[in-house]
Amino acid sequence: MCAIFGVGSHKEASKITYLGLHALQHRGQEGAGIVSTTDGEPHVCRRKGHVAEVFTESALNRLHGSAAIGHTRYSTTGGNTMANLQPLLMKSSFGWVGIAHNGNLVNAAALTQKLEAEGSIFQSTNDTEVIIHLMARSRERDPERALIEALRQVEGAYSLLVLVKDKLIAVRDPYGFRPLVLGEFLGGPVFASETTAFDLVGAAYKREIAPGEMVVVPLEAPKNMVSTFPFEKTLKRRCVFEAIYFARPDSVLYDQSVHTMRKDFGRVLADEHPALGADVVIPVPDSGVPAAIGFAERSGIPFDMGIIRSHYIGRTFIEPGQAIRDFGVKLKLNPVREAIQGKKVVVVDDSLVRGTTSKKLIKHLRDTGGAKEVHVRISAPPTAYPCFYGIDTPTRSELLASSHSIEKIRDYIGADSLGYLSLDGLLKSISLKSGEGFCHACFSGEYPTPI
Amino acid sequence: MCAIFGVGSHKEASKITYLGLHALQHRGQEGAGIVSTTDGEPHVCRRKGHVAEVFTESALNRLHGSAAIGHTRYSTTGGNTMANLQPLLMKSSFGWVGIAHNGNLVNAAALTQKLEAEGSIFQSTNDTEVIIHLMARSRERDPERALIEALRQVEGAYSLLVLVKDKLIAVRDPYGFRPLVLGEFLGGPVFASETTAFDLVGAAYKREIAPGEMVVVPLEAPKNMVSTFPFEKTLKRRCVFEAIYFARPDSVLYDQSVHTMRKDFGRVLADEHPALGADVVIPVPDSGVPAAIGFAERSGIPFDMGIIRSHYIGRTFIEPGQAIRDFGVKLKLNPVREAIQGKKVVVVDDSLVRGTTSKKLIKHLRDTGGAKEVHVRISAPPTAYPCFYGIDTPTRSELLASSHSIEKIRDYIGADSLGYLSLDGLLKSISLKSGEGFCHACFSGEYPTPI
Amino acid sequence: MCAIFGVGSHKEASKITYLGLHALQHRGQEGAGIVSTTDGEPHVCRRKGHVAEVFTESALNRLHGSAAIGHTRYSTTGGNTMANLQPLLMKSSFGWVGIAHNGNLVNAAALTQKLEAEGSIFQSTNDTEVIIHLMARSRERDPERALIEALRQVEGAYSLLVLVKDKLIAVRDPYGFRPLVLGEFLGGPVFASETTAFDLVGAAYKREIAPGEMVVVPLEAPKNMVSTFPFEKTLKRRCVFEAIYFARPDSVLYDQSVHTMRKDFGRVLADEHPALGADVVIPVPDSGVPAAIGFAERSGIPFDMGIIRSHYIGRTFIEPGQAIRDFGVKLKLNPVREAIQGKKVVVVDDSLVRGTTSKKLIKHLRDTGGAKEVHVRISAPPTAYPCFYGIDTPTRSELLASSHSIEKIRDYIGADSLGYLSLDGLLKSISLKSGEGFCHACFSGEYPTPI
Amino acid sequence: MCAIFGVGSHKEASKITYLGLHALQHRGQEGAGIVSTTDGEPHVCRRKGHVAEVFTESALNRLHGSAAIGHTRYSTTGGNTMANLQPLLMKSSFGWVGIAHNGNLVNAAALTQKLEAEGSIFQSTNDTEVIIHLMARSRERDPERALIEALRQVEGAYSLLVLVKDKLIAVRDPYGFRPLVLGEFLGGPVFASETTAFDLVGAAYKREIAPGEMVVVPLEAPKNMVSTFPFEKTLKRRCVFEAIYFARPDSVLYDQSVHTMRKDFGRVLADEHPALGADVVIPVPDSGVPAAIGFAERSGIPFDMGIIRSHYIGRTFIEPGQAIRDFGVKLKLNPVREAIQGKKVVVVDDSLVRGTTSKKLIKHLRDTGGAKEVHVRISAPPTAYPCFYGIDTPTRSELLASSHSIEKIRDYIGADSLGYLSLDGLLKSISLKSGEGFCHACFSGEYPTPI
Repeated sequence: MCAIFGVGSHKEASKITYLGLHALQHRGQEGAGIVSTTDGEPHVCRRKGHVAEVFTESALNRLHGSAAIGHTRYSTTGGNTMANLQPLLMKSSFGWVGIAHNGNLVNAAALTQKLEAEGSIFQSTNDTEVIIHLMARSRERDPERALIEALRQVEGAYSLLVLVKDKLIAVRDPYGFRPLVLGEFLGGPVFASETTAFDLVGAAYKREIAPGEMVVVPLEAPKNMVSTFPFEKTLKRRCVFEAIYFARPDSVLYDQSVHTMRKDFGRVLADEHPALGADVVIPVPDSGVPAAIGFAERSGIPFDMGIIRSHYIGRTFIEPGQAIRDFGVKLKLNPVREAIQGKKVVVVDDSLVRGTTSKKLIKHLRDTGGAKEVHVRISAPPTAYPCFYGIDTPTRSELLASSHSIEKIRDYIGADSLGYLSLDGLLKSISLKSGEGFCHACFSGEYPTPI
Repeated sequence: MCAIFGVGSHKEASKITYLGLHALQHRGQEGAGIVSTTDGEPHVCRRKGHVAEVFTESALNRLHGSAAIGHTRYSTTGGNTMANLQPLLMKSSFGWVGIAHNGNLVNAAALTQKLEAEGSIFQSTNDTEVIIHLMARSRERDPERALIEALRQVEGAYSLLVLVKDKLIAVRDPYGFRPLVLGEFLGGPVFASETTAFDLVGAAYKREIAPGEMVVVPLEAPKNMVSTFPFEKTLKRRCVFEAIYFARPDSVLYDQSVHTMRKDFGRVLADEHPALGADVVIPVPDSGVPAAIGFAERSGIPFDMGIIRSHYIGRTFIEPGQAIRDFGVKLKLNPVREAIQGKKVVVVDDSLVRGTTSKKLIKHLRDTGGAKEVHVRISAPPTAYPCFYGIDTPTRSELLASSHSIEKIRDYIGADSLGYLSLDGLLKSISLKSGEGFCHACFSGEYPTPI
Repeated sequence: MCAIFGVGSHKEASKITYLGLHALQHRGQEGAGIVSTTDGEPHVCRRKGHVAEVFTESALNRLHGSAAIGHTRYSTTGGNTMANLQPLLMKSSFGWVGIAHNGNLVNAAALTQKLEAEGSIFQSTNDTEVIIHLMARSRERDPERALIEALRQVEGAYSLLVLVKDKLIAVRDPYGFRPLVLGEFLGGPVFASETTAFDLVGAAYKREIAPGEMVVVPLEAPKNMVSTFPFEKTLKRRCVFEAIYFARPDSVLYDQSVHTMRKDFGRVLADEHPALGADVVIPVPDSGVPAAIGFAERSGIPFDMGIIRSHYIGRTFIEPGQAIRDFGVKLKLNPVREAIQGKKVVVVDDSLVRGTTSKKLIKHLRDTGGAKEVHVRISAPPTAYPCFYGIDTPTRSELLASSHSIEKIRDYIGADSLGYLSLDGLLKSISLKSGEGFCHACFSGEYPTPI
Repeated sequence: MCAIFGVGSHKEASKITYLGLHALQHRGQEGAGIVSTTDGEPHVCRRKGHVAEVFTESALNRLHGSAAIGHTRYSTTGGNTMANLQPLLMKSSFGWVGIAHNGNLVNAAALTQKLEAEGSIFQSTNDTEVIIHLMARSRERDPERALIEALRQVEGAYSLLVLVKDKLIAVRDPYGFRPLVLGEFLGGPVFASETTAFDLVGAAYKREIAPGEMVVVPLEAPKNMVSTFPFEKTLKRRCVFEAIYFARPDSVLYDQSVHTMRKDFGRVLADEHPALGADVVIPVPDSGVPAAIGFAERSGIPFDMGIIRSHYIGRTFIEPGQAIRDFGVKLKLNPVREAIQGKKVVVVDDSLVRGTTSKKLIKHLRDTGGAKEVHVRISAPPTAYPCFYGIDTPTRSELLASSHSIEKIRDYIGADSLGYLSLDGLLKSISLKSGEGFCHACFSGEYPTPI
């Protein structure tokens, strides 16, 4: 997963972008970058690390200009190297182009092979670079038309912000896999992966960029922005996992409150898998909190913060030679003994992928916290299929639910009972306009595109 | 505030101490240090920064030995310089001494002046160094007796861990201002400011070190530890602010669960200052959560996580020249619009010191979140007096409650109503053994010692 | 100017390359890099800074393999950015290619424009990258043949080391502008810009790579290396400035001792411009030393080290606000008063480009050193034309000799007399095989290629 | 060895001091520091590294004030830790005191033990700190008188610069072991270890500070400086090794030119140990150059730069696993083959301590350079005794000449012949005023003080 943010008309465009990226830090902590432009020239800064580390005062001061795009990276395709940080900035015959991409192209490998055979040289192992090479090969001399020609050749997930010397372009693939929203800031357009970024800078949320939509902002006259739909129509397939896990709860996603959706997931989960006779409902913080509140409200079982999360986790932790049991989990999560001791506890989390963390946590709740029974409730269906559209899931064989029954998983993690939200339950909790739908391939295996 | 941690007998003493300090990171983020010992020689590492940054693998590997003490620093007296990081390690006639101190001495300035007049030279502006100079001046050649002689001359708050070549000593001042607990780890003793540190390393909590108690652990035979009470008896005055704010909710403080105490504060607060007709109770995360849960339970008003806290805050943030309204608060806290829009909201927090943050947050809840009414409830009495015992409070004139009525404060922060927990309500929520009491000078101005 | 070094068969190829680059550090201090290969995969490390800073132990340990090429960069074309450090490492349809280049292509801009129009995307502003794009566009699937095809399209100066998955290729342009030598190390081939690199690692110098020669080393059987001359023959035009200034005095250049050549320049200079009646000959250290010794020997005037050079010069020096006269020169050079006070001094240097340093030095010799007369002798002809073949000279207008008579220059720098070695005198001091010659365009303006 | 520099009255005192320290960098590369003062308050910056790295623009800007003292450290007593960098800055009852020390006290250990027994606590393992503790213990409330009282108790070598809130004090021990000179800069006094520092900043050299002299500069009226001789008179014993090795050749030491003294050493050496029939005289650069010129002039054998020194040596060099023969020497020194091949070579150096470097160099001259015979001439007597007055010599057992005859040393290093300058020859080359003499304990074992 990654985040993108862009601003078309603000005298401190790069500082606004930096703040927008900070608000979107949860979508990618590996590295960040900004490309801005003044007088037709680009400026770039890209480094590994968190947004607050990457952009120093002097770095931001060098990123002149009234238009900027930014990116925070969460490693997906193409290892963790400097060359893979975004926005990419490259020069070709029609000038320089900066590009920030959230998503993943499914035909990148085939296109790369074809382009290399024709003499193209790739700098990165990043699927995004394919788009720029396709633009460079285009006969179109206008970057906007070259971009459309390039995107017609790629398949998969892309929410893109593209900056060229006189335009800022926002575009979302026809399925609409990854989110992209439009806001208004001091009269000019801003773009972001999530609305929470608008709250920080004080911009007003206007609407989603629609699946398949391209919005072009002329830098000379940002208000004259133009929206077109240059691609063939297809089914809308927004990512449902964003609603469950990735988006911040204070964001508005697909025109709905993420927090409210998650509380609703908890409510439906309580209907589907009640935990009769339990004493307390506790979330795995922070992401399990809204669903746990919903579960508690619906079931009538009291809610409590029975697990404390430490927010001081650095990159690497040094473990003693004589290893500490369940070390990794203990560094982050610790039970509040008096809240759970001797009790039948319902633990609500939003996902269960490999199961190793859950297994250790449950042990810690029993050993350190003294829980009498531990009933696990997951506010999503079992994750059984890998994502090819930009979410960094393990391979199929590492996904516990791909090869284990729910009973086997319960046994493995050591819970007294285990319940998942059903796919039907999930989908009915979110209302969409008629004819639109979700990509739920990670749960159902129904991939909207050929893989 | 600061944290201390020590281990008397473990072959990887410094790694255990490092983990203990990590669990206590909330008590001080400015810098950290460890002193360990092997074969009578000390090893030391002290640096600015978080525990996870300060101690690299190679730094820990150089901290040999089976006994170690550690410290995380939260700036109190004596500016933020390298020389003020602890544990202090100094050499005097009876050998080297390492010392880690949580607390603040109230007669340090007078003692320093006297010692300098006699030819002592101070390295730091740290009150802790006074103790070592008094030890060096002692006629006692045994460090333990020299320490007792020194401590009999100082006044104020100290929970200390002292390491010399053959002993680890833990001592708490007669009032017992700052906490200090004893645990057992693989058969040997461990000491910490809070029990949560024991949970991480897998040690068992045994008991509080009593006010006025000194525990001496011989490094050759750690199990033969000896407890004495070498100081004149006085009233017990444990810090009540630890219970309200400083300690981690998963710790056991003064033999009681911090989480439970805080929920109880919320319950009594709901009795004292109900918010009739309110729609939702939301905490200021993370510290306001337990009291908000207690308030919600008692009042019957639904609880919700109406504010999201960002945990990616770096050291400094760069604001655009054209300043963003309520910038500092927005970086950290953002309302969940759908949870509060159009509602009468009760916001529960654990303290209100200068009032500037509350004022901005309330504005943000109204402007961005759309709250209809904002009723503030503080799970502590008004903070009207500075602390001289180790908590870093502003000067009296900066404390809003020292010179403003509650109505004036309400008006200043822009709340629809404002209620504080009463001192009586606070004290009755915590039960102590007969004859023991709290230091609540920050609320009452009743300082246990001359200032 | 830059340096290149390569080794075809040594189990610690990257460490040998690192030492070779260290010995060639005088040819470029801006940055350095190494590409090595094992099992068909490349490894790369490139950073700004001196060789000893760039390559840490762990960096070298990651550069596995028995073949490696390295480069130290002295900024020529294409500003000082990370992207311009070499060796370049790029991937195209026939696999990866690493390339280290000393020299400068004169038709790079035209070729870049043509390639971009056909859809190529350039990473750097480095002329070397043109070669790789030409290779990628070639129909030849063998990298060696693709390289020949590419080089037939470029014009200018290149001594190249090219590493592909199964071959190490060394090639020198038909004019032979820049040096390149072949050595033998433990039975395998080594390549370097100068022989001094062989002395450090203990390799034996075999011969120059001839102008227009390509040597291909199969990595599987390094001894089976093959030499060919794949380009059209042309006049040999080795750079004479290497002999005067750039090469280290302990190197063998064009099969002659650099130190001896420079002493000979000093001898001929003494014949052409004697300094009758002078008391002492002093060099501008370190580069003026050999010519000064030759001048002293021939003229019979005593030699002395009348100027001391400081070798502790960092990157930037902070000058007081109240500026110090001739600050920049004083930081580096200081007269030995007793050696020159009251004397008629002959100062020998190897070049005089802009004249500003000489002007300050002469003033310093008079003011601080007390010299009575200062007679400047330059062991080269006046530098009147810029170099387009890889030496970083100022533009024509900045070259003092391009627009000033010798008398005017003497007047500007404040010398009592000034004498340059004549071009004839220079050329007759160096013997070459019949039919071979030098590029002396910087002195004569006779450029061997169209510019 | 170390360097000190101080300025009493200049609006940019710290920048002048920084430049002075840079000119004295050869006397200590381990670390550097400056203490300056404004309005009675001290400012300090001390770090490991070279002067150019230690003092950034911002660091210098924080070192306000018109008086400053500085120090560069060459590790002598007391390992390489931050705490041992100078100037020391400490606070005692009469205020703060900054102190920069070149030299070594021989009774420091005894004084430290006595002070610790009385309750003093030492920060460093630096003998200089003893002086401050003695000052702090003094009954004198005036720092100047306290300093005199302290210095009357210490024995050994000290050239000191001391800064207190209203005075800058320069003092040299009665023997005058280490140098200290006085200059004038824009009407105010400057102090330095060597005169070369005056050349860089443009100050005029006035005279030596005499052995036993104390100069006090009132900061309010720097021109009213006062000179006194507060210590008992003793024999003058200036260090002769400064003349041979340590001082820069462009300095004036003990009122004589270092360069000229060294050329004279070479001349006397040629008389004492001629090398009849030799073809060329070559120095070990850079320090052997003046003596080699003197030797060549006197003997009539031609001088040449037959060895090239690399000035790019970083802190650590990584050697291949398959070690390179004579690696350490080769990194620094390389023969010029044509200058020595087949020749009988006289190699002139200024010292031979452990002999390991000479042994490797001679081998390198034969193997790589092709020298036919190597005759070593040392422009100093054999170093047979350790120095206790501030020069960092090995222990007696490591000094080759302490236990080996000259014939054995010759045999060990592999020279064809070996000659040292005699002590008589050395002393007669330097003229001093009647009644004054040198410390030559390193050659003769005649220590001026009890050890």
